[in-house]
Amino acid sequence: MRLGLGLIGTGFMGRTHAVAFTNVNRIFDLPVEVDCRMIADVDAEQASNAARAFGFDAATADWHQLVNDSQVDIVAIATPNVLHKEMALAAIAAGKHVYCEKPLAPSAAAAMEMTRAAEARGVVTAVGFNYLKNPMFKLARDIIARGEIGEIRSFGGVHTEDYMMDANAPWTWRLDPKGGGGALADLGSHIVATARYLIGPITKVLGDVRTVIKTRPDAVGSSRRVPVEVEDIGRALLTFENGCSGVIEANWVATGRKMRHDFEISGSQGAIAFSQERFNELHLYLNTDESAQRGFRTIFAGPEHEPYGRFCVAPGHQIGFNDLKTIEVCDFLRAIAGEQTGHAGFREGLSVQTTVEAIYRSAKDEAWTNVPV
Amino acid sequence: MRLGLGLIGTGFMGRTHAVAFTNVNRIFDLPVEVDCRMIADVDAEQASNAARAFGFDAATADWHQLVNDSQVDIVAIATPNVLHKEMALAAIAAGKHVYCEKPLAPSAAAAMEMTRAAEARGVVTAVGFNYLKNPMFKLARDIIARGEIGEIRSFGGVHTEDYMMDANAPWTWRLDPKGGGGALADLGSHIVATARYLIGPITKVLGDVRTVIKTRPDAVGSSRRVPVEVEDIGRALLTFENGCSGVIEANWVATGRKMRHDFEISGSQGAIAFSQERFNELHLYLNTDESAQRGFRTIFAGPEHEPYGRFCVAPGHQIGFNDLKTIEVCDFLRAIAGEQTGHAGFREGLSVQTTVEAIYRSAKDEAWTNVPV
Amino acid sequence: MRLGLGLIGTGFMGRTHAVAFTNVNRIFDLPVEVDCRMIADVDAEQASNAARAFGFDAATADWHQLVNDSQVDIVAIATPNVLHKEMALAAIAAGKHVYCEKPLAPSAAAAMEMTRAAEARGVVTAVGFNYLKNPMFKLARDIIARGEIGEIRSFGGVHTEDYMMDANAPWTWRLDPKGGGGALADLGSHIVATARYLIGPITKVLGDVRTVIKTRPDAVGSSRRVPVEVEDIGRALLTFENGCSGVIEANWVATGRKMRHDFEISGSQGAIAFSQERFNELHLYLNTDESAQRGFRTIFAGPEHEPYGRFCVAPGHQIGFNDLKTIEVCDFLRAIAGEQTGHAGFREGLSVQTTVEAIYRSAKDEAWTNVPV
Amino acid sequence: MRLGLGLIGTGFMGRTHAVAFTNVNRIFDLPVEVDCRMIADVDAEQASNAARAFGFDAATADWHQLVNDSQVDIVAIATPNVLHKEMALAAIAAGKHVYCEKPLAPSAAAAMEMTRAAEARGVVTAVGFNYLKNPMFKLARDIIARGEIGEIRSFGGVHTEDYMMDANAPWTWRLDPKGGGGALADLGSHIVATARYLIGPITKVLGDVRTVIKTRPDAVGSSRRVPVEVEDIGRALLTFENGCSGVIEANWVATGRKMRHDFEISGSQGAIAFSQERFNELHLYLNTDESAQRGFRTIFAGPEHEPYGRFCVAPGHQIGFNDLKTIEVCDFLRAIAGEQTGHAGFREGLSVQTTVEAIYRSAKDEAWTNVPV
Repeated sequence: MRLGLGLIGTGFMGRTHAVAFTNVNRIFDLPVEVDCRMIADVDAEQASNAARAFGFDAATADWHQLVNDSQVDIVAIATPNVLHKEMALAAIAAGKHVYCEKPLAPSAAAAMEMTRAAEARGVVTAVGFNYLKNPMFKLARDIIARGEIGEIRSFGGVHTEDYMMDANAPWTWRLDPKGGGGALADLGSHIVATARYLIGPITKVLGDVRTVIKTRPDAVGSSRRVPVEVEDIGRALLTFENGCSGVIEANWVATGRKMRHDFEISGSQGAIAFSQERFNELHLYLNTDESAQRGFRTIFAGPEHEPYGRFCVAPGHQIGFNDLKTIEVCDFLRAIAGEQTGHAGFREGLSVQTTVEAIYRSAKDEAWTNVPV
Repeated sequence: MRLGLGLIGTGFMGRTHAVAFTNVNRIFDLPVEVDCRMIADVDAEQASNAARAFGFDAATADWHQLVNDSQVDIVAIATPNVLHKEMALAAIAAGKHVYCEKPLAPSAAAAMEMTRAAEARGVVTAVGFNYLKNPMFKLARDIIARGEIGEIRSFGGVHTEDYMMDANAPWTWRLDPKGGGGALADLGSHIVATARYLIGPITKVLGDVRTVIKTRPDAVGSSRRVPVEVEDIGRALLTFENGCSGVIEANWVATGRKMRHDFEISGSQGAIAFSQERFNELHLYLNTDESAQRGFRTIFAGPEHEPYGRFCVAPGHQIGFNDLKTIEVCDFLRAIAGEQTGHAGFREGLSVQTTVEAIYRSAKDEAWTNVPV
Repeated sequence: MRLGLGLIGTGFMGRTHAVAFTNVNRIFDLPVEVDCRMIADVDAEQASNAARAFGFDAATADWHQLVNDSQVDIVAIATPNVLHKEMALAAIAAGKHVYCEKPLAPSAAAAMEMTRAAEARGVVTAVGFNYLKNPMFKLARDIIARGEIGEIRSFGGVHTEDYMMDANAPWTWRLDPKGGGGALADLGSHIVATARYLIGPITKVLGDVRTVIKTRPDAVGSSRRVPVEVEDIGRALLTFENGCSGVIEANWVATGRKMRHDFEISGSQGAIAFSQERFNELHLYLNTDESAQRGFRTIFAGPEHEPYGRFCVAPGHQIGFNDLKTIEVCDFLRAIAGEQTGHAGFREGLSVQTTVEAIYRSAKDEAWTNVPV
Repeated sequence: MRLGLGLIGTGFMGRTHAVAFTNVNRIFDLPVEVDCRMIADVDAEQASNAARAFGFDAATADWHQLVNDSQVDIVAIATPNVLHKEMALAAIAAGKHVYCEKPLAPSAAAAMEMTRAAEARGVVTAVGFNYLKNPMFKLARDIIARGEIGEIRSFGGVHTEDYMMDANAPWTWRLDPKGGGGALADLGSHIVATARYLIGPITKVLGDVRTVIKTRPDAVGSSRRVPVEVEDIGRALLTFENGCSGVIEANWVATGRKMRHDFEISGSQGAIAFSQERFNELHLYLNTDESAQRGFRTIFAGPEHEPYGRFCVAPGHQIGFNDLKTIEVCDFLRAIAGEQTGHAGFREGLSVQTTVEAIYRSAKDEAWTNVPV
């Protein structure tokens, strides 16, 4: 099966998508082959340059043309999230499969609309929670599913970076409250996705949000400062459906942290710890080890951890951030081909969104809040 | 100045005290010299054996005798915490300086009574928050105080161990609600003490407590199970007086963790991270480092970090848990001699207790709660 | 400039090359654009399948056809190393630029012949020492070159893996002494390349080689064992041209080690440490840091460490093994375009080979041995 | 049994001994009790002060008096190593048990004389290789002895510090060639002791020594520089009696390293790695772990690792450098009481010395050299 790709967006994430869709058939043996048909950017010249650089047949400044092109079977959306809904709905209406960057939409209501449209139209969807595609996440999930660390008792997770730590860094679209929130929406959604992937649904939350830097310059070099309306730090206490409790923190002023998407899961028979800054490793503790020899093992990703071996035949050589994206595209294509891969479709993106919104509501109400099913 | 020591308790912590009081004059040059006068244990034979093993002049089965002995100037209390108040009050009444293990008492009210009595009588007191005595804590505090990491924005701390993780481990006095609580009272008090030491007073809290193991055998090998009334996991969101926010977790079912008393402090100009499992190290990140060369530095304790050099002239050789106790005793003796050492007296123990109680109250009320000053 | 690529070899390394040559124009803005013209494999069907999977225009079972094809400007050789010389010489004779996997050849004499041929013909060459392409290596080299860690005093390096640790793993071509040696030739050549890249030429060596597993099954499942004639472990003491001394170890029976290509460099003013298992990090110690705050910093790769930013705009997200290959191809293409990139051409591959051979000679002679210039 | 202690030396190591001998009966239940009888220092006032501070009954400026005192049963020697032989021989002649700091003597011949004298007189001896007393070393040795990591194939060890890294640090007694050598004698002896403890006798060596800082000021602040005659870095390739090969490095100009006494041992079924900078941890890799879950485990010292539990009842709390000394004294006292503890007596100190001397000889001869039995 050959499918045509239409990609909207030519920025960093657009390029990442282009590379992933190009590599996926070189790395994996798939029943689907992708042809890079059309790329869209509001700037026609930029679209044209990107088409040449990324190997697309055609370029357009009008994304409507792309989603309606008969040679386009898959639409990948790598644009600011305020645009996701309109683009996705149009693509779905045209019967295209849709791969949308996270967060799915600025609100759960919008995400719901997108999800229902896709399900009604019967197209396959994907949301860009690429950290979930790490082979070590699958290892962790399998260990938990097989009961090797027993009953899950506790989850602690953070997603912390420091790219907003400078009080003189100017206002950006990330700070626009219309985008759905601050650090919690941007980074916290990732750790919610991870918690759900490994432990299951979150049913109750108690959140707290803090704006550390109250005003920022309205532009680079400007001396005029505007108020910041979204949080720099968001935290939440959690209850999972299975009874496990937990806590998460999303923080984009976490000085010194570049990419912490770290978690620790305690079970009655063992524990798992992970740090994204070393994402080719998983740390596993098992009570079944001989008692004087117990300790967290540092397991390095290798060919035994699928699909690492598609990228490299030797363990410890490490896959990179962009490879996670290639795995995500692979799972998406497999889903289009009818295989079961457990990839995060719009329905899952909606659940994450719903959970994040519940945290915001709970922070406002200063009360434990149920997450709508 | 020579001072006589009376030690109540001959168990593990009693021995630790005995060693610390013995070593302190060998390690430090102090204006006070300690003579080990009397040791007390309800079991007369045990008291007698301990006196010989630990080098005390006399033994008694009656702690009242000890606190009233004219040769005893300092009373060290290393008994279960339900006994702290009565013993401390008696010692204070007799005009003795008192060194009491943590937590000071099962309730803030009791801690308040002890603190007021000591202050009224003018005796010097100490509470056993020995982790604060780590030279790396002083380094961290000094870095913060000098403004090297800027304005403090965030605190995250845990105290997690796994000694209660086995659901078949029997009921113990630690599970007695009369002791003041569970993991939060036992372990959380340490991380509250650390947060206060480094950041300052905590003014508002929002807590959550969970009992993971609902019943336990009532004795070793018993098939009868009794309900557990205290929490295995306690968490709290925090606001500090200086505006900084934070989160803590106390967990004694944290499988695989033996001694995590870990924290991360983010400031506007840098950050500090610490792990108790490697307590001779401090991790420091500075924005003032050249931009392409920034990273957390692993600083090993050495003679430049007082009083490490009293224990070893060379860096990286490491002090141990018992050495922290020796430093604690040193600071206590210096305070008795009138020196300013910033050690944790009853007043500080009371503040920790008050904070912990506020967390319990907040968890019960499911609401943000002010910590009484 | 558009250049046609001919790739010989369709195995793991062949695929890695195909992906790298495909990605290089998507990741980098280059004056050269690559067209995947022809791929060769002794198995015609395999060649044909690979052409389709990797996006090559044509396939052949005869590599001579490939090296002589007029549309092929660059020949990439990803075959067993006994074939490198013949293929490279033929490609050079046809005026092609040649990118050859390491080691360049089984002997320094053969490597010399290849190098001279390429230089005489004026074609650009590259050897696959891809670990050198790590942005953190460039950071390390720059730090050293700027004198930030002072005069270099000591180098310690290892390349250890465990893929040969099982005494029942069968004989393979890696054990063929015609290949030039064992662990030292296969893995040690990498650490020699690193030492040269960072410190400079090695002038004297004293080597030691050990065969730990004396016999191996002659085939999978066979009960017949054949003697092993190459070393499992090779070590060498070193003197560098600049006076620095060092030691290296190559070991393919290093149980538990998956990909250690680790080094530590001590200078009079600082030090650098690196571990390939976490290759997006560099550890830097500077004497110029405030004395009580010195420690090895963990620097995570980010956009400030070129060309990391071409792969990801955010620090700490990590590049992978295959990305190193893409950087290598980038540098090769830039060299073809006339830019200075300092990539490892045949001349450098020859120097590595010469050094490795001197170690073997020294081990045989049990004496310090000069490395020929 | 009560035994009187005479301690020669009141410097840092003297104090360490005093504390260890004082603590040993408080920490351990031993058949021997120590009375601190007499302390000696060439400076009478210093001796007197030390007696008071460390709790000794008497002081002397004449160590001969001490070794001949009838109340002294044990002589501890914590003086510069050029004095060891004379003092030890005198103590042995007087029938005292002798605990001597390492290295036993500046030469193997002297060490041999001391060893023979002690054995002839039938007194118990000890040498201060206190790193061997780490409970994690015993764990490692037991794992090896039980065959859990199979046949031992490779040993790599370093002892690196940076206390001599400053070229302007003045000449000290450590640089006196009469002391027996430089970094190799001072630090390398420790790693030789560890290698022997864990793997067994070393039979052949090939050494290399380097003096990095050729001249040093002859005194603090002096502008006159004197030549340095001993090595700053020593390295050796090794063959063990059991066939295992290895390599060691001793380096006191290893910038940034404060206390590396690190090793890695590879076996056919597993591996052990250790770093002294985190000496309460042992890293263990076992091939018997499930294949997708293998990794080095970080085992923290706890009560299961004797005698850690004597210092602390909870795991992960950590013992310190001085506690290793207390364990050493414990083993010595047990040996005096007739128990088998495997402590390092003079005979073992002699073997270490002999090995170190063989390395020096081999470095001079530039040839593999047998270690005399």
